[in-house]
Formats: sequence, structure tokens, C-alpha cells
Amino acid sequence: MPLKPGEKIEDLQNGFAIIQNPSFFAFGTDAVLLSAFTEVFADEHVVDLGTGCGIIPILLHAKQPAARITGIEVQPPIADMAQRSVSLNALDARIRIVCADLKNARDHVAHGVDAVVCNPPYERVNAGMDNANAFLNIAKREVLCTLKDVIAAAASLLRTGGRLTMIYRTERFAELMDVLRAYHLEPKRIQLVAPHADKAPNFALVEARAGARSGVKFLPTLAVYEPDGSYTPALKKIYHIGEEKPCSISWPHP
Amino acid sequence: MPLKPGEKIEDLQNGFAIIQNPSFFAFGTDAVLLSAFTEVFADEHVVDLGTGCGIIPILLHAKQPAARITGIEVQPPIADMAQRSVSLNALDARIRIVCADLKNARDHVAHGVDAVVCNPPYERVNAGMDNANAFLNIAKREVLCTLKDVIAAAASLLRTGGRLTMIYRTERFAELMDVLRAYHLEPKRIQLVAPHADKAPNFALVEARAGARSGVKFLPTLAVYEPDGSYTPALKKIYHIGEEKPCSISWPHP
Repeated sequence: MPLKPGEKIEDLQNGFAIIQNPSFFAFGTDAVLLSAFTEVFADEHVVDLGTGCGIIPILLHAKQPAARITGIEVQPPIADMAQRSVSLNALDARIRIVCADLKNARDHVAHGVDAVVCNPPYERVNAGMDNANAFLNIAKREVLCTLKDVIAAAASLLRTGGRLTMIYRTERFAELMDVLRAYHLEPKRIQLVAPHADKAPNFALVEARAGARSGVKFLPTLAVYEPDGSYTPALKKIYHIGEEKPCSISWPHP
Repeated sequence: MPLKPGEKIEDLQNGFAIIQNPSFFAFGTDAVLLSAFTEVFADEHVVDLGTGCGIIPILLHAKQPAARITGIEVQPPIADMAQRSVSLNALDARIRIVCADLKNARDHVAHGVDAVVCNPPYERVNAGMDNANAFLNIAKREVLCTLKDVIAAAASLLRTGGRLTMIYRTERFAELMDVLRAYHLEPKRIQLVAPHADKAPNFALVEARAGARSGVKFLPTLAVYEPDGSYTPALKKIYHIGEEKPCSISWPHP
């Protein structure tokens, strides 16, 4: 597998590997937490909106090899990197990478998928944005898609009862609830993530179900660090899923 | 102060006392947590929707003696008990009890209040409801007012920038966010409450502001009990505010 300049192969320690280019796009802890939070059952079709380097499809495959996963990525060089990671792991039969705008997801995926996953851009586009890295801007800021676009795309794909799982900043939590419900995606399972147990949560993991009744189950708040700066048992467990030893983690990711 | 049959005076250990009738209506930990969570500034006018025995006005007065507080209670015998507690504490100049349906709050309170507090009924009315105690049914179930009624009443009273604080079951959290935003009450400050630090939160404290921009700040999740069953330092602190010793607590209250 020939690598392009700046690329490296990271061993995910779970039998799989992924191509990364840190100056360009590298996955963060948020993608790992979201994959751990997402339930996938055998024979399901799962779509990852904005798949980036393809980390979420590969982690979900590691959890549930009998699922079929489609990753949609709008930026051609990143989609290309994701496709090469899929091939590197010989997963072409299970994971399909599509280079497309998620707003047009329905042109590439038939309606009726069982689950949609999305680690969307968190930041609104504003005057203070950093243009130094255009690829990261698109991944992290609402340059090409807003929260509403992401949720509309998920709603257009999911079967009734299908699940959308997302990770999002708590800062925009009320807006997230609102937009989900506007698209008849009812929040059913929520877990807040805090850097320390006694600190304010800064991320929320949310599962919403298409056409479900209202009624939320919160999970215990997930703390990343112990008071001494080491990782909590819960976080170590997430990073050990299917692994011999944990892969590297950073929180919050840059 | 003559008591009615079944009533007792509870010393709040903060210089104030309250009349309770356990077979009829007694305050719970939720009211105390909500009072602790609610910010009140000098010279503000605060309205407590569904004041019950008047516990929240008395606790808020203990925090901020320079505020003016109106408590609205629909059930005449409970409003009467609240009024007698206000008089017992010689607070008639600071706390006004109005016996009225909160849906008609605007008939009794001029628009433009600084803050509204509400510990609303949590449970929907359904076939499984317990009719054994009609007073408790009204306090705890949506017999006379729904979540939407409560929030509509708060919105009708608050000045722009005014604050609504509520405590609610996490089960109905998404619905709460939705209804608040539908009435232009933007959730700004949220604290989840869990029985233990490693257990699922079951209550949420929420502050929303009339006409504010979106953007939520979560506080650290509040745990009620230590692993050994004793109260956490955070909870002890809440129960010690202005007190020589804590008043009795129970969680979740019956």
C-alpha cells in the first residue's frame, strides 16, 4: 500500500490499521467515543456522514463485522485516504466510501438504513475562523454543512425506528435537541462527557430514533481523566475494545 | 400560630420555619436543589409557579432578603398553609401568596418579572395514576397543568432577559428543551443530578433566559450520595446554606 507524502499508518491495536495525515486530517477521541456509544447489530446498514479518514466505519466494523457500512466524505483527498484505509484492511466488501456532499446523501444511499452516525463540524463559521488549513476548516466548522443539514440528511436516510448517533459540544446542546425533534428524530439515549468527574461536561453523545415516542435515558456522565491526570477506567475500557493495548488518545483533540 | 390537624412546623435551620402536613403536601429535595440552583439578585421580583407549601419563596428569601417573591398555588388548602408559613416567618412584606391557577398568572402579576421558578408536576396523567391523595396528584401529575402550560405562563411573565429555573426528570429532557425554545426561553445553564456519581442522572436543573441567544453552559453533574450512602459534600453544602445544621433530606422524594 503506497502512502502519499505526510501519511503514516496507525495500528488501531484491534486487528485494523488506518492511514492518517496529521497535517491534513487525523481522527480524534470524539470519533472513538462516538463509535463506542453507537450500537450496531448484525446485518444492519449503517451510514457515517462526514467519515473523514474512515475511522468510524473501521471501528464499527471491529465491533460488528456483520454490518454493512457506508462512509460519505465530501473532500476528495480525504475520501481517497479513507478508501485506501478500507482497502488496506481488506474491508472493501463491508465498507463503501462515497465521495459526496452529505446534503446529497440520498443520491448515493437508498432510504431505509438502520443507523446513521455523524461526528459533525462543531463550530459555526464566523469572522474569527482560522483559514490556515482548509481541510480542517471543513471538518471542524460549518463551512459546507450546518447542524440542520446533517440532521436533515440523517432523517432522509433512516427507516422508521432507525437510529442517529452523534457527538456534539454541550454549548449547542439545546439547539441539537430542537433540530433533532424538528426532523422527528427523538432523543432516546444521552451521555455527557466531562474532562474530569467534578468538571463541567463539554461533549454530549446522543442517540435519536426516527419516529419514536419521547422519553430520554441518560447514561452516567463519562469522565475522561482521573484527578491524577491518568485516564479513567471507563475511558481505558473504550480504548481497549477489541484491542491488545490502547491506541493513543488525546482529549479534547486539537 | 395555630396549626391545623396533621400539621407540624419544621425548622429549616436557616432562621426560618415552614408548616408541613406530610399526609397532604411536604416539600422534597427537588425544591431545595432548585432553590440552590436559582440565582436571585437584590430588588428583583421573582415568581414561584406552583409554590406548594411555600418552601421555594422562603429558601430564596433566605438567599436574597432584598428580593420580592410571589408564590402562586392553585389548591386553596395548600395556598393557605403557605400563607401561614409566610406569616409565621413575618415575611408578609417580602413574600406574597396568591391562590390561583398558574395558567392565569398574568391576571395576578404584572408582566416584566426578573425570574420565574417552577418545580412542576413531572408525571403525565395516565391510566396508572394513583388517586389516593388528590392533593399530591395535582402537585406531582399533570392534572391541572402541563409542561407547556407552565412554560407559557413563565414566558408571559418574564421581562426580556429574565430567567426561568426549573427542575425536571431527565426522562422528559428533550421535550423540556423543545418547549422552552418554542416560547423563546433559551436554555443557558443546565446541571444534571444523579443519585451517585457513577449512576445515570435522573433530574435536570435548567435555567432558560427570555429572548437570549442560544448557547448552553453545563455545570458539573451533581451527585447526591457517596458510594457509602452518605451525602456528598456538594449536597451537604446545599443543605447548609445559611444553616447551623442540615435539615432532613430524602432523594428521590416519595
